[in-house]
Amino acid sequence: VLGAGAFVLGAHAQSSSASASESLLTMQKNANDWVMPTGTYNNWRYSTLKQIDTSNAKDLQVAWSMSTGTDRGLEGQPIVIGNMMYYQTSYPNYVYAIDLNHTGRIAWKFEPPRDSNAPPVACCDVVNRGPAYGDGMIFVDALDGMVYALDAKTGKVVWKAKNAHPTKGQTMTGAPMVVKDNVIVGVSGGEYGVRGYITAYNVKTGKRVWRAYSEGPNKDMLISASHTINGATGKPVGPHSSLKTWKGNEWKIGGGTTWGWFSYDPKLNLMYYGSGNPGTWNPTQRPGKNRWSMTIFARNPETGAAKWVYQMTPHDGWDYDGVNEMVLVNVDDHGKTVPALVHFDRNGFSYVMNRETGAPIAIHKYDKSVNWATGINPKTHEPIVDPAKMTTANKNVKDICPASQGDKDEQPVSYDPTTKLFYAPLNHLCMSYQAFNVKYKAGFPFVGAIVNMVPGPGGYRGRFIAYDPMTGKATWSIHSMFQDWGGALTTAGGVGFYGTLKGMFRAVDLKTGKILYQFKTPSGIIGNPMTYMHDGKQYVAILSGVGGWAAIGMTNHLHKSSAGLGAVGLNATLTDYTNLGGTLMVFALPSKVASAH
Amino acid sequence: VLGAGAFVLGAHAQSSSASASESLLTMQKNANDWVMPTGTYNNWRYSTLKQIDTSNAKDLQVAWSMSTGTDRGLEGQPIVIGNMMYYQTSYPNYVYAIDLNHTGRIAWKFEPPRDSNAPPVACCDVVNRGPAYGDGMIFVDALDGMVYALDAKTGKVVWKAKNAHPTKGQTMTGAPMVVKDNVIVGVSGGEYGVRGYITAYNVKTGKRVWRAYSEGPNKDMLISASHTINGATGKPVGPHSSLKTWKGNEWKIGGGTTWGWFSYDPKLNLMYYGSGNPGTWNPTQRPGKNRWSMTIFARNPETGAAKWVYQMTPHDGWDYDGVNEMVLVNVDDHGKTVPALVHFDRNGFSYVMNRETGAPIAIHKYDKSVNWATGINPKTHEPIVDPAKMTTANKNVKDICPASQGDKDEQPVSYDPTTKLFYAPLNHLCMSYQAFNVKYKAGFPFVGAIVNMVPGPGGYRGRFIAYDPMTGKATWSIHSMFQDWGGALTTAGGVGFYGTLKGMFRAVDLKTGKILYQFKTPSGIIGNPMTYMHDGKQYVAILSGVGGWAAIGMTNHLHKSSAGLGAVGLNATLTDYTNLGGTLMVFALPSKVASAH
Ligand SMILES: O=C(O)c1cc(C(=O)O)c2c(n1)C(=O)C(=O)c1cc(C(=O)O)[nH]c1-2
Ligand SMILES: O=C(O)c1cc(C(=O)O)c2c(n1)C(=O)C(=O)c1cc(C(=O)O)[nH]c1-2
Repeated sequence: VLGAGAFVLGAHAQSSSASASESLLTMQKNANDWVMPTGTYNNWRYSTLKQIDTSNAKDLQVAWSMSTGTDRGLEGQPIVIGNMMYYQTSYPNYVYAIDLNHTGRIAWKFEPPRDSNAPPVACCDVVNRGPAYGDGMIFVDALDGMVYALDAKTGKVVWKAKNAHPTKGQTMTGAPMVVKDNVIVGVSGGEYGVRGYITAYNVKTGKRVWRAYSEGPNKDMLISASHTINGATGKPVGPHSSLKTWKGNEWKIGGGTTWGWFSYDPKLNLMYYGSGNPGTWNPTQRPGKNRWSMTIFARNPETGAAKWVYQMTPHDGWDYDGVNEMVLVNVDDHGKTVPALVHFDRNGFSYVMNRETGAPIAIHKYDKSVNWATGINPKTHEPIVDPAKMTTANKNVKDICPASQGDKDEQPVSYDPTTKLFYAPLNHLCMSYQAFNVKYKAGFPFVGAIVNMVPGPGGYRGRFIAYDPMTGKATWSIHSMFQDWGGALTTAGGVGFYGTLKGMFRAVDLKTGKILYQFKTPSGIIGNPMTYMHDGKQYVAILSGVGGWAAIGMTNHLHKSSAGLGAVGLNATLTDYTNLGGTLMVFALPSKVASAH
Repeated sequence: VLGAGAFVLGAHAQSSSASASESLLTMQKNANDWVMPTGTYNNWRYSTLKQIDTSNAKDLQVAWSMSTGTDRGLEGQPIVIGNMMYYQTSYPNYVYAIDLNHTGRIAWKFEPPRDSNAPPVACCDVVNRGPAYGDGMIFVDALDGMVYALDAKTGKVVWKAKNAHPTKGQTMTGAPMVVKDNVIVGVSGGEYGVRGYITAYNVKTGKRVWRAYSEGPNKDMLISASHTINGATGKPVGPHSSLKTWKGNEWKIGGGTTWGWFSYDPKLNLMYYGSGNPGTWNPTQRPGKNRWSMTIFARNPETGAAKWVYQMTPHDGWDYDGVNEMVLVNVDDHGKTVPALVHFDRNGFSYVMNRETGAPIAIHKYDKSVNWATGINPKTHEPIVDPAKMTTANKNVKDICPASQGDKDEQPVSYDPTTKLFYAPLNHLCMSYQAFNVKYKAGFPFVGAIVNMVPGPGGYRGRFIAYDPMTGKATWSIHSMFQDWGGALTTAGGVGFYGTLKGMFRAVDLKTGKILYQFKTPSGIIGNPMTYMHDGKQYVAILSGVGGWAAIGMTNHLHKSSAGLGAVGLNATLTDYTNLGGTLMVFALPSKVASAH
């Protein structure tokens, strides 16, 4: 753990040999593989493979399939390194190594010990967003707070670390990121008053290198009063940057958990992620801006030091967690090429930020129905909240859009460098929200709101769009009956992929949005497609297994409309279309079509 | 329940309107549907559909899929009537009605109440072999001994009947058969000292019409001393036909359960099925022939009266249940066309019997490794047991072939009227068997043998063969690493279908045994393929979901080699190839290939 002297920004790795991230950077250039959860450090979820293209995607078919041996929601995606595929299931968090040379042959299976305290404190089903690779090891988060490093060849545990404690309401659902010589992991528990943090463990030893909280004293957050910039003001955050935005000790149970995706810019040596909702859901209990919940963080991955922060939803009253992924692209800002990050926030705004400085470049509503804020104040760069939609204790505030699940939740977007557009699987929801006072008790729900979600205007719940975050314009949009809760993939073949909650796996023309192919997978899809090449054939793999917050009624057998944090009534009819069940589905072209390429 | 006067054979239905079986006979002629578990009353599992043929089967692909919401072994098969598909899962025995006009849309789901007493007394996983249709209703057996009649349109319970009691070790895993105005159901529990029986319930009311036991007084068995023929002797069975073959009251806990498939000959108005092993597995405890365990029964379906019986394995000492299905074909017996039934018994012999009289026509070993008997005595028509392979209390008898799972277990064969051959998915196993004394206690295992199964000669465990039971010759054979525990389907396209325990779904050329297509389904296959036509396209559906006795180690998390009634060690490596998980997989040709027909 680092002392105050560690807050030097931009320090570079001192290691004599190549760091884990340097080899990963090289490996990412091999399009046959898919070496990290997000494909590449920039989170594009884009592949240069193009055997599958707009002319032949209609001929796609299932190449092989594999039951995961579990029946809860499957987020995440496999990774592929050479002849091996690795993927992880929802709790009990099995990890499989699949030998691609022998279709579906299980080379090894890792079954972590089970901690029965974990499932009851997972807010939104017992999901997991996938394993990471680095330095010959597979890194996995387990729901119960364990981080495991497994020998990629044998599945044997190389080291393990206890990162979170279910008895305190802490769990882990995220995907680790290997960067420099560290494995970075987040934590969940925003609905249990968990004070969020991210932690770096040494890849080789599992020793904790640093931990950075989302709230509290600057030093706990690895924030420097003088060096860490507030992107909204362009100025250093100053002393007590978080403490002064909370009443009393409320920050100690203040949420801001870190269960989303990570990205990394090797040139700037900065990593990016967002923090979640402040605890409780009742804003009346926690006056102030509640920093740095709902915030984008840019940190040095070796030291944890924060270079800049930007809070999207100060004093949240809607559960608009800011954890959604940051996609790193360069944008043309008034003729100048600027290193940017693009972020579709749960609050319904898309953010283009200068990723070096944290300065906002373009902020737009990506769903027209957004009504909690009328826009962004051009001076403060903070949202202009509609007072009628501000929630407060003991008042049932109606017709707020988006709902707590946001216009987008954890489902990651994809960026296509050819069309220069973002392909975003989205929600389209509104809600009523009645806050009430709640007392904190470690390991117990700390929610304090009765929520009822409904479909957004038009009566549908999901969309898949092609979108330009600089202009805020969608080129096309496909509506879905339910939320599109799975992620997106784009490819150089001009074909994008995503899945629906009903379980339809789709290939679409990135230019036109035309559905080129679709297939009904065994269960609803909340996983993310990835692609790889094996033996001359391009495959697209996706996990089918309904669940997550979107299908919490199904996974947790809940029936009351406002149960499941307000999500159950919304998707009550989902059982008419799909079932629980976990399957890895792998698609490809028939050999004769594939070889015509 | 009938009195003695009911033993009149060949009585015909007196109902004024068409009986359920008359409409089923008409419906069976429509090849677009698959109206009963076995396809047709004769148990051919054959379809005249031929859109999929030997030239295009290579182009097959998965058309759609559906998670069953369960993870235990899936035997059985869907049925299709018009635009609706119905199937049933393993315990908790969900029944689904699927709207084929809206791919995978769940029209209704029936979730029977759960009786937690049932799963612990199911010997061989908590399987179910599928629902039956009749008179606008879907009939299902539930593991806990309930029989349900469901409105086919709504899934609402029309009537229910309690047929078996788990607290007494009784369960139900079979598929009902609707014949005349009755639904016929069996019972399981041979490993719990259950005295087997079959029962007929009135289709419309659910009232019990008759019940026929496998052991006990002739009248309990609906056997007539003077009219019921013993096929082995050609003579009436005489008084006390069962009682005199048991010591004391041992018959009351004598097994002979009835968990296999039923078939029916409308012309002879006879139904056929077999009874299971006598209880206990320790033959020393039950001297005598233990009639009528291990027996083929021919009964009048309206009265239950037995026309003939034939015991295949008197005084069983190997657990060679005689329940395997009877396939009704006409054979050429020395120039005469004879109505016959063909039966691949677990004991390794295939039987061709005159289905009118019960006279044996041809009996052959269908696996050369069979060694418990050297052959069949041509006079007594009983097996000639090798004394070295006869088991007895407290002796470990080694190298017995087949093992208790037999050379074939519940997996049903298919008959192709074009090649006139039987297509049989088989086991190929040997064992050691050490019997010991055991005391009966209701609801507790009544086994009394330590068994260890091993692969048969050659080191493989399964085969799929094309076989002529008149000559005992196989035209071709495909070996499998594991038992081929799923059933077979033949079609007029010259293509046969089956699945392997590793989960490979295969289409084979019926003439040559060439594998035309194969696909790795999510889990191992122990289900039976069926085919139907919808909107001009031929589909083949199969349930993928490993389990049953073959994978009892996986389903019940057993590790000791002799656990799971001796089956666990045999398939210990199956986990390298497949996972638990339940999925309905539906295959078809791509539209352009299908429409070329
Ligand atoms: O505050 C938290 O710690 C936390 C954790 C998680 C999680 O770990 O999955 C979710 C959320 N919040 C959340 O707000 C949310 O919308 C959500 C959706 C999902 C999901 O996997 O579908 N998880 C989570
Ligand atoms: O004696 C019985 O009552 C009984 C029941 C069952 C059953 O209901 O599944 C099986 C058996 N025996 C049996 O001997 C056997 O080999 C078997 C295999 C299976 C299967 O589903 O894989 N069930 C059963």
